[in-house]
Amino acid sequence: MARSWWGWGNVEDAVRGAELTALLDRVRPLSAAEPADHPPPAVADLDLPPPRVAPPASLAALCSADPADRAAHAHGKAFRDVVRNLHGDLRHPPDLVARPRRERDVADLLDWCTRENIAAIPYGGGSSVVGGVEPRCPGHRAAVTLDLERLDAVLEVDATSRAARIQAGVYGPRLAARLRPHGLALRHFPQSYEFSTLGGWLATRAGGHYATLHTHIDDLVESLRVVSPAGTGESRRLPGSGAGPSPDRLFLGSEGALGVITEAWLRLQPRPRWRARASVRFADFAAAVAATRAVAQSGLHPANCRLLDPAEALVNAGVTVGGGVLVLGFESADHPVGDRLARALELCRDHGGEPDGAPDAPDAPDAPGEPAADGGGAGAAWRSAFLRMPYQRDALARHGMVVETFETACTWDAFDALHHGVTAAAHRAVRETTGGAGVVTCRFTHVYPDGPAPYFGVVAPGRWGSTVAQWDDIKAAVSEAIAAHGGTITHHHAVGRDHRPWYDRQRPDPFAAALTAAKSALDPAGVLNPGVLVPAR
Amino acid sequence: MARSWWGWGNVEDAVRGAELTALLDRVRPLSAAEPADHPPPAVADLDLPPPRVAPPASLAALCSADPADRAAHAHGKAFRDVVRNLHGDLRHPPDLVARPRRERDVADLLDWCTRENIAAIPYGGGSSVVGGVEPRCPGHRAAVTLDLERLDAVLEVDATSRAARIQAGVYGPRLAARLRPHGLALRHFPQSYEFSTLGGWLATRAGGHYATLHTHIDDLVESLRVVSPAGTGESRRLPGSGAGPSPDRLFLGSEGALGVITEAWLRLQPRPRWRARASVRFADFAAAVAATRAVAQSGLHPANCRLLDPAEALVNAGVTVGGGVLVLGFESADHPVGDRLARALELCRDHGGEPDGAPDAPDAPDAPGEPAADGGGAGAAWRSAFLRMPYQRDALARHGMVVETFETACTWDAFDALHHGVTAAAHRAVRETTGGAGVVTCRFTHVYPDGPAPYFGVVAPGRWGSTVAQWDDIKAAVSEAIAAHGGTITHHHAVGRDHRPWYDRQRPDPFAAALTAAKSALDPAGVLNPGVLVPAR
Repeated sequence: MARSWWGWGNVEDAVRGAELTALLDRVRPLSAAEPADHPPPAVADLDLPPPRVAPPASLAALCSADPADRAAHAHGKAFRDVVRNLHGDLRHPPDLVARPRRERDVADLLDWCTRENIAAIPYGGGSSVVGGVEPRCPGHRAAVTLDLERLDAVLEVDATSRAARIQAGVYGPRLAARLRPHGLALRHFPQSYEFSTLGGWLATRAGGHYATLHTHIDDLVESLRVVSPAGTGESRRLPGSGAGPSPDRLFLGSEGALGVITEAWLRLQPRPRWRARASVRFADFAAAVAATRAVAQSGLHPANCRLLDPAEALVNAGVTVGGGVLVLGFESADHPVGDRLARALELCRDHGGEPDGAPDAPDAPDAPGEPAADGGGAGAAWRSAFLRMPYQRDALARHGMVVETFETACTWDAFDALHHGVTAAAHRAVRETTGGAGVVTCRFTHVYPDGPAPYFGVVAPGRWGSTVAQWDDIKAAVSEAIAAHGGTITHHHAVGRDHRPWYDRQRPDPFAAALTAAKSALDPAGVLNPGVLVPAR
Repeated sequence: MARSWWGWGNVEDAVRGAELTALLDRVRPLSAAEPADHPPPAVADLDLPPPRVAPPASLAALCSADPADRAAHAHGKAFRDVVRNLHGDLRHPPDLVARPRRERDVADLLDWCTRENIAAIPYGGGSSVVGGVEPRCPGHRAAVTLDLERLDAVLEVDATSRAARIQAGVYGPRLAARLRPHGLALRHFPQSYEFSTLGGWLATRAGGHYATLHTHIDDLVESLRVVSPAGTGESRRLPGSGAGPSPDRLFLGSEGALGVITEAWLRLQPRPRWRARASVRFADFAAAVAATRAVAQSGLHPANCRLLDPAEALVNAGVTVGGGVLVLGFESADHPVGDRLARALELCRDHGGEPDGAPDAPDAPDAPGEPAADGGGAGAAWRSAFLRMPYQRDALARHGMVVETFETACTWDAFDALHHGVTAAAHRAVRETTGGAGVVTCRFTHVYPDGPAPYFGVVAPGRWGSTVAQWDDIKAAVSEAIAAHGGTITHHHAVGRDHRPWYDRQRPDPFAAALTAAKSALDPAGVLNPGVLVPAR
């Protein structure tokens, strides 16, 4: 398998053949003309500017100036990143890609960057969709991307407390493989799972597997180890503490601007032995939302509680429904969960929901030796479709479509107005910028007792050569609508550089002052990921 | 009812009569001599120094220089506070007690303090046990305590999202009364519940009702409103967000050093309709701990999961047992919870636990109109005993005993060594400082999948006139033992001024640098509660 330099995931997994034909058939009604494919340029044709700096001899072995490396680390994986790559438009590639072999290397690299006014960009797995890893750093001499992929070990496992000390550069699948022999798992599956790292999840407060309860990775963190230009520190391993403001919570979501997370103790789970799943159809979206709210407020804590609107249900689950489909799943390593699903279905019926067939294997413990950690059947199918979505987005991007997602969270009382406002803004912006009609879908990825996290998808016909600008227009319009309706500019995609205008308005001024001061104390030269979260100096 | 100026709670609720006799009978074996009572001095006899500042005319109506007010706000409610009050030893009373009537008054008071180099001490309900509200501020001209008791309104209730906007000065019982007509409750019951405020809970990350899951008030916070010398800000009301580091988490636990919390949106709960409770006896403490760990890791999420060691069980539940008693309680507003209790009891039996009689009313919905929000029976008895403990501590303090509690949290793998180390250190310190033997008890107030929060009690014979110094010796010894075994210096009693030496060692250096910088940005003159969390400037 080879990682794609321009698009999502592995080259071998790109959409082709029958999958591509079906995908194009699905969007053909949106376009007047037959969509044409625009394949990516070869790296050799990119004509990257030469690196502006050379590493000192002591760091040279860690640093690569290989054009393929630099091209692959120039952008994240947003639609706008992929399209710019397809156009060969790489204006800010890193001058070097550094791959530290041990924590000391990270400190040495930061020292060098600080001395030389070089921007240091922590990369994670590079799956940022908000310009979080793009070296747009005009105030700096050069930019070095820090790729921690070599720091990928599970260093200690404490089976008693169910926790492990893990290096930040590990990717999802390798982490799972390392923990499996201990009978434990992190059970954190963002959509980027295969192509993102623990350090990236922590630095961006990733949203994970659990639709309720432990939604962000924040809740799974016992302690963090952070290297900053001002020094290295590690929080004490604690299950809970009230000793001052949480030190970890300042670095969770700090997006590489305050330090480089090199290790963490994470809370683990045994593999679920009991599962129960069902999906519920609704004739009316408002009723579906009300049912979802009832489940979210019930204290039943489903692991899966994903509401798909009719368009989402059609596209991603192949279901035709008037109001929506609620996908429910419960799991436990300790006890049967069929009674919980039964109660959740009761709450759904109270709001007119009709279970779609019989619940899936309620209270049947997994067969011994079952291979997939996530079970087979419906769960595996959903997960497989879920993991294909970014590949399909890339295929549509190549064919001149505007296709992207964005997400927010709001309180339940605000949802109806936000949903209508954001959807209307998206449709209006699509019409204005493309002259055509688009599809705007909505699902809930996570739900809380006090509100949902709605996740929107947009597919619209684009004008090849302008699709980035078209998407930027749409994104600005929906971001304004989200802000106007009290939502957050991001629920689990981070702020990066692209969300800054709305984040700056959302963030309370006293916290902005505190964060800026904290950044100055930890990174006095302002070399750490300049421009994310706070203005570059 | 009148609040005691020197001790816990209400004057009328002090221990007397048969309760006092029984209490003294219980500790008599510890003392060679019959304990003598040392009643508090009259406020008029305290001879407080005159206030060093007078408020400007615009703030005069908010400020009290009444000696009774100043005396009552001079200390928190730790053992060392109570004993110093009994001795009339009030070295650092506030010069004035200010009671703002609206948020603008808070800002005006902070402006005045900033201009005049006057320490501003947010008071909450004054139940600090760590020197958090004591104006020990040698670098300042004077000290003004901010008592927000007049800011005690519930401003908005959002029944759909189950949340309310609440002013920070409200005390527990009044808050409950204001929410009850809406069928909602915060369900946050620290031991100080009656005599502490929402603002105090937030500023100190109070530990509440829930033994598992939502243990700290942090998890109940939707947004905060904070007034700092550098300006006022409010976070957006959100059920969840990944937009940068959480702004609220920096102010949660900030102990008045970064700003004054004036309002918050809090997540609420409907009143529980279903409950199930039981207590389980163990012949062996290690087995009891193992059972408690199994329950904590089961995902059953008991609301109550309090393990009492044999000494705690005897003193606080009147139960004689060899290994310990685990008090379990489940509750739900949505569904029966008897099956959860049954599974928890199964886990206990696996570790040799024997249920103490039949489970209490499993799956019986509360009778309509039942008055107590917490139910009657065993729950009410426990809660009543729980709320009496501070009064009993005061009675013993008056009689020359050394009597105090402290708490920590650690991972499960570290607990045995910590428990033995801390208990041994406490016994050794008691012997060295009092020459006699003391009782050292342990219970878990909260438990997490990765570790417990052990809470220790010490009762020992003291030498009247030296009991504060004696306790300080014991506290230093146990704090060293906690640190040596990897525990936190506080799980839910905050840092204040008294925990600083151990907090400073526990806190990672990069976070210390960030917090100090944040404080300088928000409070450039360093007037906000100088000396808590970070060194006074």
